[in-house]
Amino acid sequence: MRILGVDPGSRAAGWAVVDFDGAPRLAAAGVLRPATSGPFAVRLLALRDALLAVIDRERPDAAAVEKVFSGVNPQSLIALGEARGALLVALAERGLPIAEVTPAEIKKTVTGTGLADKEQVRRMVGALLGRPAGSSRLALDAADAAATALAHGYQTAAHRTVRAGAAVAGGASAPVRRRPSG
Amino acid sequence: MRILGVDPGSRAAGWAVVDFDGAPRLAAAGVLRPATSGPFAVRLLALRDALLAVIDRERPDAAAVEKVFSGVNPQSLIALGEARGALLVALAERGLPIAEVTPAEIKKTVTGTGLADKEQVRRMVGALLGRPAGSSRLALDAADAAATALAHGYQTAAHRTVRAGAAVAGGASAPVRRRPSG
Repeated sequence: MRILGVDPGSRAAGWAVVDFDGAPRLAAAGVLRPATSGPFAVRLLALRDALLAVIDRERPDAAAVEKVFSGVNPQSLIALGEARGALLVALAERGLPIAEVTPAEIKKTVTGTGLADKEQVRRMVGALLGRPAGSSRLALDAADAAATALAHGYQTAAHRTVRAGAAVAGGASAPVRRRPSG
Repeated sequence: MRILGVDPGSRAAGWAVVDFDGAPRLAAAGVLRPATSGPFAVRLLALRDALLAVIDRERPDAAAVEKVFSGVNPQSLIALGEARGALLVALAERGLPIAEVTPAEIKKTVTGTGLADKEQVRRMVGALLGRPAGSSRLALDAADAAATALAHGYQTAAHRTVRAGAAVAGGASAPVRRRPSG
C-alpha cells in the first residue's frame, strides 16, 4: 500500500509518498511551489498540474489530505480552500481514494500528543521514516505531508487488523513499528 | 465581447454568459449543482468538469468571478474556497482572462447601491438584460453570475472609453444602456 500525503497550502503544498509494506518507509517527498506572480487562477492550475505529475510518477494507491479548521483571517481561509480545491481536483482526476485527516489525529499519531508543534512533527517523522535518498532534511511542509500519510496508513492498518479479529494494543493512533525478529 | 460570469458556491455555482456588442444581452445562464453525495473531491471534480462544458459550449472571451471576503464560519469559508479553486482551475485550463469583482462593485453596478440584497440584484439583472430564451425566471445564483459579468463588462467598457480619450459620465460603475437612436 502506497499512500500520498498532501499538506495543502496557498503558497506551498507539501507532499510525501509513504510505503506501508512492512515497516512504513518514505519513498519520496517534496514541496510544490507555484510561481508567486501571474494570474491567481494560473497559479492554481500550476498547483494541480504539479500534483498530477507527482501522482503519475509515484503511482500511489490512495491519498490522505490534512483537514483544516482555522485560519488567520477570512481571506487566508479562502486562499487555503482554493489551493485545497485545485489539489483535490487532481487527486479525483486520477481516481485516488482520499482520506481527510485532522491535524490532531496527525500530531497524535506521530508524536503521541495532539498538541505538538511543526518542528516536533518533523523530528518524529524523520525518526519513524528516515529520509528520502539524497535529501538532508525534510522541508516542514513535506514532513507534515509525510505525517498525514503516516496517520492515515496507521488508521487503515489498524482497521484492517481489527477486521481480521486481532486485538490492537494502543488503538488506531499509536504508531507501532515491528521489525522482523530474525 | 462575451463574458462568462461565475458566482462560486460550494453547493451550487451560478453562471451566466453576457454579450457586450451594443446593449448587453444575456445569452445563456444556469446553475451547476454537483451531486451532494459521494466523495467530496469527486464533487469538486464534477464542478470543474461542468464549468469546462459550459466554456466549450458558450465560448466566452473572458471570465468574471465574484470575490468573497466573509463567511458564516471557517469551515464554510474553506468549502467556498475549495469550490472557487475547482472553478478557477477550469477557467485557467481554457486560458480565459479572469477578473475578480467585489460584491460591492457588483451591487453598485446593477442597482446603484453597494447595499442591495440578492432579490434586488435579480430584479435589476432581469430589467437590464432580459431573460434567456425559454426560461421564466433566473435562479438567484445565475442572476448573481449575470450581475458579475455585467459589472466586469461595464468596467471594461469604461476603461476602453477612458483610454480612447472620451469623458465618462458617472464613472466605471454606472450602467448606461444606449439604444441606437434611429
